[in-house]
Amino acid sequence: MPETLESYVQGSWFTPREQGEPMFDANTGEVVAHLSSAGLDVAGAIDHARRVGGPAVRALTFHQRANLLKALAQHLMGYKDEFYALSHRTGATARDSAIDIDGGFGTLFSFSSKGRRELPNSTVILDGPLERLGRGGTFVGQHVYTSRPGVAVQINAFNFPVWGMLEKLAPAFLAGMPSIVKPAPQTAYLTAAVVRRIIESGILPEGSLQMIAGGHEGILENLGPQDIVGFTGSADTGALLRHHPAVAEGGVRLNVEADSLNCSILGPDVSTDDPEFELYIKQVVTEMTSKAGQKCTAIRRVLVPEAMAGAVVEALSARLSKVVVGAADHPDTRMGPLATPAQREEVRKAVKALRGSCDIVFGDPDHVEVVGADAEKGAFVSPVLLRARPGAEEPHDVEPFGPVSTVITYSTTAEAVELAARGKGSLVGSLVTGDPDVAREVVLGAAAWHGRILVLNRDNAKESTGHGSPLPVLVHGGPGRAGGGEEMGGVRGVKEHMQRTAIQASPDMATAITGFWTTGSKRTVEEVHPFRKNLSQLRIGDTIASAERTVTRADIDHFAEFTGDTFYAHTDEEAAAANPLFGGIVAHGYLVVSLAAGLFVDPDPGPVLANFGVDNLRFLTPVKEGATIKVTLTAKQITPRTNADYGEVRWDASVTDQDGETVATYDVLTLVAKGEE
Amino acid sequence: MPETLESYVQGSWFTPREQGEPMFDANTGEVVAHLSSAGLDVAGAIDHARRVGGPAVRALTFHQRANLLKALAQHLMGYKDEFYALSHRTGATARDSAIDIDGGFGTLFSFSSKGRRELPNSTVILDGPLERLGRGGTFVGQHVYTSRPGVAVQINAFNFPVWGMLEKLAPAFLAGMPSIVKPAPQTAYLTAAVVRRIIESGILPEGSLQMIAGGHEGILENLGPQDIVGFTGSADTGALLRHHPAVAEGGVRLNVEADSLNCSILGPDVSTDDPEFELYIKQVVTEMTSKAGQKCTAIRRVLVPEAMAGAVVEALSARLSKVVVGAADHPDTRMGPLATPAQREEVRKAVKALRGSCDIVFGDPDHVEVVGADAEKGAFVSPVLLRARPGAEEPHDVEPFGPVSTVITYSTTAEAVELAARGKGSLVGSLVTGDPDVAREVVLGAAAWHGRILVLNRDNAKESTGHGSPLPVLVHGGPGRAGGGEEMGGVRGVKEHMQRTAIQASPDMATAITGFWTTGSKRTVEEVHPFRKNLSQLRIGDTIASAERTVTRADIDHFAEFTGDTFYAHTDEEAAAANPLFGGIVAHGYLVVSLAAGLFVDPDPGPVLANFGVDNLRFLTPVKEGATIKVTLTAKQITPRTNADYGEVRWDASVTDQDGETVATYDVLTLVAKGEE
Repeated sequence: MPETLESYVQGSWFTPREQGEPMFDANTGEVVAHLSSAGLDVAGAIDHARRVGGPAVRALTFHQRANLLKALAQHLMGYKDEFYALSHRTGATARDSAIDIDGGFGTLFSFSSKGRRELPNSTVILDGPLERLGRGGTFVGQHVYTSRPGVAVQINAFNFPVWGMLEKLAPAFLAGMPSIVKPAPQTAYLTAAVVRRIIESGILPEGSLQMIAGGHEGILENLGPQDIVGFTGSADTGALLRHHPAVAEGGVRLNVEADSLNCSILGPDVSTDDPEFELYIKQVVTEMTSKAGQKCTAIRRVLVPEAMAGAVVEALSARLSKVVVGAADHPDTRMGPLATPAQREEVRKAVKALRGSCDIVFGDPDHVEVVGADAEKGAFVSPVLLRARPGAEEPHDVEPFGPVSTVITYSTTAEAVELAARGKGSLVGSLVTGDPDVAREVVLGAAAWHGRILVLNRDNAKESTGHGSPLPVLVHGGPGRAGGGEEMGGVRGVKEHMQRTAIQASPDMATAITGFWTTGSKRTVEEVHPFRKNLSQLRIGDTIASAERTVTRADIDHFAEFTGDTFYAHTDEEAAAANPLFGGIVAHGYLVVSLAAGLFVDPDPGPVLANFGVDNLRFLTPVKEGATIKVTLTAKQITPRTNADYGEVRWDASVTDQDGETVATYDVLTLVAKGEE
Repeated sequence: MPETLESYVQGSWFTPREQGEPMFDANTGEVVAHLSSAGLDVAGAIDHARRVGGPAVRALTFHQRANLLKALAQHLMGYKDEFYALSHRTGATARDSAIDIDGGFGTLFSFSSKGRRELPNSTVILDGPLERLGRGGTFVGQHVYTSRPGVAVQINAFNFPVWGMLEKLAPAFLAGMPSIVKPAPQTAYLTAAVVRRIIESGILPEGSLQMIAGGHEGILENLGPQDIVGFTGSADTGALLRHHPAVAEGGVRLNVEADSLNCSILGPDVSTDDPEFELYIKQVVTEMTSKAGQKCTAIRRVLVPEAMAGAVVEALSARLSKVVVGAADHPDTRMGPLATPAQREEVRKAVKALRGSCDIVFGDPDHVEVVGADAEKGAFVSPVLLRARPGAEEPHDVEPFGPVSTVITYSTTAEAVELAARGKGSLVGSLVTGDPDVAREVVLGAAAWHGRILVLNRDNAKESTGHGSPLPVLVHGGPGRAGGGEEMGGVRGVKEHMQRTAIQASPDMATAITGFWTTGSKRTVEEVHPFRKNLSQLRIGDTIASAERTVTRADIDHFAEFTGDTFYAHTDEEAAAANPLFGGIVAHGYLVVSLAAGLFVDPDPGPVLANFGVDNLRFLTPVKEGATIKVTLTAKQITPRTNADYGEVRWDASVTDQDGETVATYDVLTLVAKGEE
């Protein structure tokens, strides 16, 4: 007899005290496993996350967390066959499974990479530049992101049991939060298989991932203001969660990603002869049939110019007629079954509602030919294309969560934008056009109604990842009906899990708190040149106070001649005098920073390997002939690379003149060997 | 007979069809005016904002909007006497009024300045760098913020009738949203006076500001997914708004800023001899008595080391005993009345609840001596200091919205952090300490529970703006009980009012949509050097493709000698060969960019006035002797300054070598004269 899934809570596998509800194979209707969390100590799991998991994750730096995500993805890659086999049982074809499984692992890799490249190797993120709050510079403001000492509860949808878990887990983990995963009942057995491999690997610290296989009763009641609920699912359940006292009154942060009535617009410039026409048709069919249309991002509304409607319907129908429906693991199958017969009933109900103002132009919701399976035992349904009659309301309000789309016509580009907005907020919209003016008008007009907009044409078709694919580096979510949440988006998704706080302090205190050297705080000048210190020896605040150098007219003349930069402000007294900003010959900015480098550099081989860049260089005061400059360089941020024997040091550089005026400010970026203390 | 306030809706002043409820002078109990919005066409006002106000604001660039905010602040400064007179009637002393009135105008100035300095002179904000989504570079991602075509409804609190309106109006207006202001009933007459002066001035476009003086019935029902409600007030009303169907189901974005149980911590390092002790005492008394404690940011919990409790209570009591309570406009008054007798009843109730676990150590909630007024007719109350008994719960849960604070003791720094968190989320916390380790432990431990944390000590006391003052450049808001919202924070507050969208497109399309030149998109090379074009003639994409220059060993040697930058990688063959990154002599990075400038510059006087900076310079490939480099410079962003006859041009610079390898990339920043087309 098929087993009942175990949950993973408080460091061990929990067997529920009831057999629970059956989960069915989408192709055959066979029972795959049972699901119940009866008897599970929900409060204990939440407490475990807070007391054990959270502190363990927060003891790691962003880079260490990022490395664990990479190791995890590499580990899971070894079990793909196991996951694919279970994925087929959910109704996912090999192609659908790749989106879910490989897409999920790719998301881990992406977050790992972003974490190492875009976050510091510490536990606090600075947000924005320092704000000087007083003229004297003794009182400054710095926004920071810190980890919330709570738990991230992830209530996932049935359609992507692997990706859906990992795309929420990765940013939460990077942010320093432990996760409790609550898979959707229809496909929980696949999520559970992945969680088992994760736990088995021992890669993530204990308590940073728990899974409740079963209902989510009692979870919200136990959450508080430092906890986050990430929910993907229907707008109705999203609304229920918003009304929950824990959310409405208790300060639990809720991020909702709901399915939406996404549109794809065929630009008014596209004729049937353009390659964009073919791209459009292909995209609509792909989005209708991928995952049998069970994607929050699928195209529900096919918006086309009136004159093109006939050609579009014809081309879509021709292509749809070639879509083979069948068992998810059958080699001929192009589209698998829905997840459950109940989902099929929902789709049929939605099609019925749509028929109030739309006509079916392809497919029959009640009949479909299938290969490799029994059409009645499995949850199969035909792709269905509808065409809206003039003024139709339903296609903008009724969402068939299956392989169903509706062709709607527009007369002007402005009307296309209006129709897009009729979705009341969508995760994604797309536009197929070759005309930049159309792109600008449609995208800027529709952007506020969308979390993501894809503009597809012949130039990017080959590399485009498609209308329906959320990417880990881009935000996923949308306003209004789409839930109003934001997920992923690289470090944006990490910050969503953290708390932003404005710190007001003296520069020295700001440095002590953030671990980044703050303008105005103490500079440490010692006998040894800081470039002679390796990464372990170097301290924030270590400073080079250089000697002075006078910039002569000969230097300026020579630099102009040598570099070829004979801009009049450096070479022509009369013209330079007329320049409203300079009023006379000035040294080249590049000369100033070159001489500054000559003043701060330590020539002999040592731990400093290279100057690999400069940031935020501003020339603040013109340097005229005879000016005497010096430079102060202070270690501002030290970032050991976890996978190399060197790291990055960011130096605050300030060039001043004989009057103490600041001539130039910038950050110098160096690579420094790690070495030993 | 005192008038009934008019509302300003749909372009004219609206007289309600009922007299409405009276508003009372806080000092005397006299009726100031009446308040009603009976008969007001709420749906019409919202429609007017969307159809008239929104398009008018969005037709302006960020800089144009910013200039209007500045003009508005300057205009309102002329009516300060009028506003101060009304402010006194709300119970605000001159000092309280300055926070509200001058603070409000300062907020307009600050947003105006931030808008011009930190936002582009256009209508779209780029968010983060370009994401390359395919190896070939034909498919890229760019996050943008665009204006929401909705309305910002601002439901304000009674305590800051001027600042409270302006701190919400300024970011909304900058973001391109029209506002509908709903002042709190107790002090609406002051808000209404300011709105009248704003409307009279004609500075803001019609429809961008409306005011509903009266109830907020019917407002939420008419809002949709592009609208925002900004609410400041009680946690209870905040929860009601969260439950409203428009919010829970209709996608209205809600930003709540609720009062909270803010704490101030005296560091364990501070003794009565330290100047920090005096700073702490002074700060607590200021926060208790400013606005008679009716501030969302006031200190409710006074967290001190056990051993210091006696000294703190004594010092606070001594100082509180000198606080003169009286009529808001009386010259001797240090603290005015509460806003209404009902508020006084609330405060007395809260003190009663607190006495369950706390003892009053100063003041009597039922009796107070006043100057210049009748203590019974006005809403006067004495400052009250309590001391919590061990294990007290109430001071962490009961908020007396008046001049009431409770002294609570802690034994370890970790316990101080725990007690701070007991507030369940606060707008602000403060710490008075001279010890950087204490600052780091407390601030990082408590940051996730706070929107803002102030660290005060002898170094910044003179310039500190104080525990209770939100600043326009810092975020205001806090997690949990504080409402979970964020306001202000400079451009952060502007972005809160906009929609973030991920755009996926070819580089050319991305350029067309955003108006910023996107890496990979078309470069226009014409005969005329782009440095000869003024700001009106220059176009995004205009490109300089430079000649070539070979970098010789003599150049490197000479540059080393001339600048003094004799780092071994440029001078010592053997040592350079051993460098793991270079493996031989390389040209200085500063030499490369200096030579590149020589290649792209156009020497004669012309519209380009100066190169004022360089951003994001990265040296990607070492340049060895004999390498031949060239540079490509493309106009990336053009920002006319609204108040000068020149603007900024950001150029994309790319230096490549003879193999086509990219040697260095950076942005060159120039000032260019406007001129004529």
